Amino acid sequence: MIKVGIVGATGYTGVELLRLLAPRQDVEIAVVTSRELAGTAVSELFPNLRGHIDLAFSAPDSRALGGCDVVFFATPHAVAMHSVPEILALGARVIDLSADFRIQDVVTWEQWYGTQHACPDLIKEAVYGLPEVNRAAIPDARLIAVPGCYPTAIQLGFLPLLESGMVNLDRLIADAKSGVSGAGRKAAVGSLLAEAADSIKAYGVEGHRHLPEIKQGMQLAAGSEVGLLFVPHLTPMIRGILATLYAPLKPGVEASNESLQAVFDTRYADEAFVDVLPQGQLPATRDVRGSNRCEIAVRYDAATHTAIVIAAEDNLVKGASGQAVQNMNLMFGLAETAGLTGIALMP
Amino acid sequence: MIKVGIVGATGYTGVELLRLLAPRQDVEIAVVTSRELAGTAVSELFPNLRGHIDLAFSAPDSRALGGCDVVFFATPHAVAMHSVPEILALGARVIDLSADFRIQDVVTWEQWYGTQHACPDLIKEAVYGLPEVNRAAIPDARLIAVPGCYPTAIQLGFLPLLESGMVNLDRLIADAKSGVSGAGRKAAVGSLLAEAADSIKAYGVEGHRHLPEIKQGMQLAAGSEVGLLFVPHLTPMIRGILATLYAPLKPGVEASNESLQAVFDTRYADEAFVDVLPQGQLPATRDVRGSNRCEIAVRYDAATHTAIVIAAEDNLVKGASGQAVQNMNLMFGLAETAGLTGIALMP
Amino acid sequence: MIKVGIVGATGYTGVELLRLLAPRQDVEIAVVTSRELAGTAVSELFPNLRGHIDLAFSAPDSRALGGCDVVFFATPHAVAMHSVPEILALGARVIDLSADFRIQDVVTWEQWYGTQHACPDLIKEAVYGLPEVNRAAIPDARLIAVPGCYPTAIQLGFLPLLESGMVNLDRLIADAKSGVSGAGRKAAVGSLLAEAADSIKAYGVEGHRHLPEIKQGMQLAAGSEVGLLFVPHLTPMIRGILATLYAPLKPGVEASNESLQAVFDTRYADEAFVDVLPQGQLPATRDVRGSNRCEIAVRYDAATHTAIVIAAEDNLVKGASGQAVQNMNLMFGLAETAGLTGIALMP
Amino acid sequence: MIKVGIVGATGYTGVELLRLLAPRQDVEIAVVTSRELAGTAVSELFPNLRGHIDLAFSAPDSRALGGCDVVFFATPHAVAMHSVPEILALGARVIDLSADFRIQDVVTWEQWYGTQHACPDLIKEAVYGLPEVNRAAIPDARLIAVPGCYPTAIQLGFLPLLESGMVNLDRLIADAKSGVSGAGRKAAVGSLLAEAADSIKAYGVEGHRHLPEIKQGMQLAAGSEVGLLFVPHLTPMIRGILATLYAPLKPGVEASNESLQAVFDTRYADEAFVDVLPQGQLPATRDVRGSNRCEIAVRYDAATHTAIVIAAEDNLVKGASGQAVQNMNLMFGLAETAGLTGIALMP
Repeated sequence: MIKVGIVGATGYTGVELLRLLAPRQDVEIAVVTSRELAGTAVSELFPNLRGHIDLAFSAPDSRALGGCDVVFFATPHAVAMHSVPEILALGARVIDLSADFRIQDVVTWEQWYGTQHACPDLIKEAVYGLPEVNRAAIPDARLIAVPGCYPTAIQLGFLPLLESGMVNLDRLIADAKSGVSGAGRKAAVGSLLAEAADSIKAYGVEGHRHLPEIKQGMQLAAGSEVGLLFVPHLTPMIRGILATLYAPLKPGVEASNESLQAVFDTRYADEAFVDVLPQGQLPATRDVRGSNRCEIAVRYDAATHTAIVIAAEDNLVKGASGQAVQNMNLMFGLAETAGLTGIALMP
Repeated sequence: MIKVGIVGATGYTGVELLRLLAPRQDVEIAVVTSRELAGTAVSELFPNLRGHIDLAFSAPDSRALGGCDVVFFATPHAVAMHSVPEILALGARVIDLSADFRIQDVVTWEQWYGTQHACPDLIKEAVYGLPEVNRAAIPDARLIAVPGCYPTAIQLGFLPLLESGMVNLDRLIADAKSGVSGAGRKAAVGSLLAEAADSIKAYGVEGHRHLPEIKQGMQLAAGSEVGLLFVPHLTPMIRGILATLYAPLKPGVEASNESLQAVFDTRYADEAFVDVLPQGQLPATRDVRGSNRCEIAVRYDAATHTAIVIAAEDNLVKGASGQAVQNMNLMFGLAETAGLTGIALMP
Repeated sequence: MIKVGIVGATGYTGVELLRLLAPRQDVEIAVVTSRELAGTAVSELFPNLRGHIDLAFSAPDSRALGGCDVVFFATPHAVAMHSVPEILALGARVIDLSADFRIQDVVTWEQWYGTQHACPDLIKEAVYGLPEVNRAAIPDARLIAVPGCYPTAIQLGFLPLLESGMVNLDRLIADAKSGVSGAGRKAAVGSLLAEAADSIKAYGVEGHRHLPEIKQGMQLAAGSEVGLLFVPHLTPMIRGILATLYAPLKPGVEASNESLQAVFDTRYADEAFVDVLPQGQLPATRDVRGSNRCEIAVRYDAATHTAIVIAAEDNLVKGASGQAVQNMNLMFGLAETAGLTGIALMP
Repeated sequence: MIKVGIVGATGYTGVELLRLLAPRQDVEIAVVTSRELAGTAVSELFPNLRGHIDLAFSAPDSRALGGCDVVFFATPHAVAMHSVPEILALGARVIDLSADFRIQDVVTWEQWYGTQHACPDLIKEAVYGLPEVNRAAIPDARLIAVPGCYPTAIQLGFLPLLESGMVNLDRLIADAKSGVSGAGRKAAVGSLLAEAADSIKAYGVEGHRHLPEIKQGMQLAAGSEVGLLFVPHLTPMIRGILATLYAPLKPGVEASNESLQAVFDTRYADEAFVDVLPQGQLPATRDVRGSNRCEIAVRYDAATHTAIVIAAEDNLVKGASGQAVQNMNLMFGLAETAGLTGIALMP
């Protein structure tokens, strides 16, 4: 029985962790914190959990959290870093869904997040929790930095091409579309239904905080600098990310739909949660709604000698809480897929 | 040329007033106020107005407003009442889209709105701006209280039955469904797309602020007390109200689809903005999206001797800003339909 | 291991059955039929099932179906009745999600469905599969008629009041709102996103096919005739039914929020899938998205001496496929909740 | 008074033409054809037009159409070409919203549309109705080929860059997102709300029929061959196209946000319907919902030496019927903006 604490469980990644963990026999949800809602039943805030979880929110308390086997941080950025050192010291392991430990270069992190990092020493220790890349390092990690939602879809989509050495790295493009839950469960005019429904727009064109994280991962895979254009779009749907990726192939590289398909099939042959679609099928975010599966399709455009990759994930599952649980499974020696085999809701 | 001021133009009824008034040759939009956005171009906040309005928001200033011919208040409740006396004294007329002057009984108003009324004397003078009922009183009014969105649809739906004396007044039911823009352009978790999309719920079952306003109007029409059950529902759409009304007929009253149809056809024969559909057609909010038209259908259910009325309106047009402009037209001796004949956007 | 066949699995209740049954260790999905798609992999049509089901559609074949332990019909009305006799004769049991065996009075059925019933003798044998009413009869049934989506929510909402004898039966009102998936996965202009999104409308006001089914159940519960007004509404969401019910109480009956709450709490105390919310909470369809739970709230309106009941369900789960599986569990002596404890997807 | 006929007015571009033309004093809508709905009132099919148009659909009749001053074809592809020669011969001018006369190379057209062209001679005569490019040729044209929805947004977005000679033409990318109305008002499973809502997907990656049209226009502007990757996406909204365009600049070209802004500002300085947003603002399809305005923003990405252009339009207005009316205005010597200054509906 793994004793679990969740910090910041009033947001969307929090409730999604609860949805994934509550049914499990091998997990005990011991502490669920919220400063404002301390004392309120979790299932009053999230009625989908009625009958599934019988806990109330409690005020954050390092001792209680430190007594857990593992603590998930489902907090905004720049929160976890203030508590993680103490909780680690008390013996709990930490899976942080926020951005605090994702970027190895602390200067870059501080630029993008506009604040000083509270525990830069821990950044080096943190393992970037993308199991498809770092599976070996996860079991022994004390501190996991769960990848962001955009970074997960975009890295999984580009990795086979980067590792293969086929692509020209100067100008890779990630045109990504996200559901509104990506903005979190916080009151903001731009996320209102009356603002965001029945419309699509780009945002963050000048630079989105996920850019350095994505580049970091891509450069590790490519073994060199990468030029990346990343344009996120706010899409009128609740969940889901679709990333459409454009990768120019190096001159002289021979390619076809079939050869690219083979590269992806091979790369992900043993991955439970990356599903390479056959030629003729294309991903849709509804295919993965509520599931931990990332769907990927690849095509070759002969006219421009470019690989087009399309990746779909549920931003709250494979893009956040599902991936966090996948890391937990690996950390505690469980089946990687434990509790994560739920089928996507369709329609 | 009517010189117009708008207070609180950063909300949805504000931008809708601007959409309706900006194209007019007989209206000059002189002042558009917002305390927070003073100095910002109106079209920066509302890009749909680019090229149509060349004004910046200014801080509220009674003198500037008082120099207008008419001032629209598109503010939350309990704001207008603090400024209206001064603005009236400066010679401007006022059209208040908020609830401040809708309820004649100040005690009732203070109970529902939880605050003391700032100028109870003016309530008596205020004309309830439902032209289909009060057309005669509007031209000479200094102060118009524009009906709420639910009250407009529900009163227009019930009126012919109430005036005809056919219905049993003990237990009338209004089951109403509203788009999320009815909650206004303010940051609130419950109005987020991720909360309100792809879901429907009732709210305010214990009592909604529009109830006393609706009852007041219905009782005037019926000439006696009315028992009304009003249940509003939050519906996953941007605009629109659909009100489904159930009115038990008095025992012994003979009725049929045809006879009820005749009652409604006659009542609204001369109304430009109330459109009684023929038998065989039913309203949908999309039929009136962006238009000032209220669509109504009526049916007779023989098995339960009940009239069913269905009324659809755009909550921001006939339910707010369009109706406000209709009042302005009447106040200034213009054609009642001036600037209000735009066709609904379909699809 | 229960050997299962599914007829008509290309529709929404079909794919939902597959979502619920595929993960089960005690169920073998043996046959999935579709005339048009025979030979196509099920997971090609429904990519959410990739990795979860490895079957292709096959042409309907009574012998193959008859060799199953139980056959689900997820077909449009007037299809099952042509095959059920033969399949029963071959020894399989049948759970029919369509309307063919729901209405005991064959004359009424033939009027509403406009065709002759193919096996009227079987109607009498059919057990109406609403476990909250008929739990005792289900285990031994050969043929289950699964209730319709509207009938489930509306009956569950009215039942406690009807059984208690508190309500005046002359004029009960069910104002129901359904997501568009209720119209099925068939090409129809009215169900297009461009037609049904961002709009709400009533339909079937002249009479909806679910009316006789609902009245039949209500009359059984009440022990006498019932006057029912049923107005369904097409709501811009994928899944979900919200039924708002209005039940005038008999004169002299003493009632309060608390007393009505007690009636409902008591009635459903032992029901795993009917969740009576405490006073202060109201159902939303998102609370039950993807789950087999029916959420119910009840209020007393003193001014009109009326009970208001609000019931929310997922039309494809408790309103169709989940309820069908609940019946299957009972028929085969399994835990009634087996495979049905999935938590609703929120947001 | 311009006498207008509309062929195929039961679709979305048809009803949008009616919305734009019905209020005009200088236009008489004389004939509205539909084979299936001959005899039905137009406003019965499209209730938004109640009170605005008093015509019934009539069966297509070349004589009646030929007697008009101008006939709009709002038909699927490969329909207009069968009637246009006769109608032109009868003296009417033709504005074709379909694809029949858009592509100058008939062989290319026949490949993409899979049928023989019925009147290849007329293709040469047809003027491609993009006023921002062909304004001079439109007034005297007998036959206008109105650009497709994607081609309008994408060409308007790329044109200033192509004409300026700044961009490398080998690998231009257009990642475009369209609302579901782009698929037309025809029953199709993929366009159902239950399929297309709350999800996004790419389609037509192997090649979309708009590709040759877009390339044709881009090559004319660039004066040479262009390599274009075009990936359309089905987006869960009714109306709107957002095109995100990526144009690598030639090595050595100096560029900045300001310099690109100047290129766009200059190119579209005199265009009433192309609105170049200032730096700091980005387009959203809601900004142009129901309006004929195309919003464009441009940014320079220094890291990859690439121009990013984002263009938003209403696919049914500037992307179809509004542009058709803009052509009509030019053909008949009217103000280009006549009847097209309606403000977008927001929210």
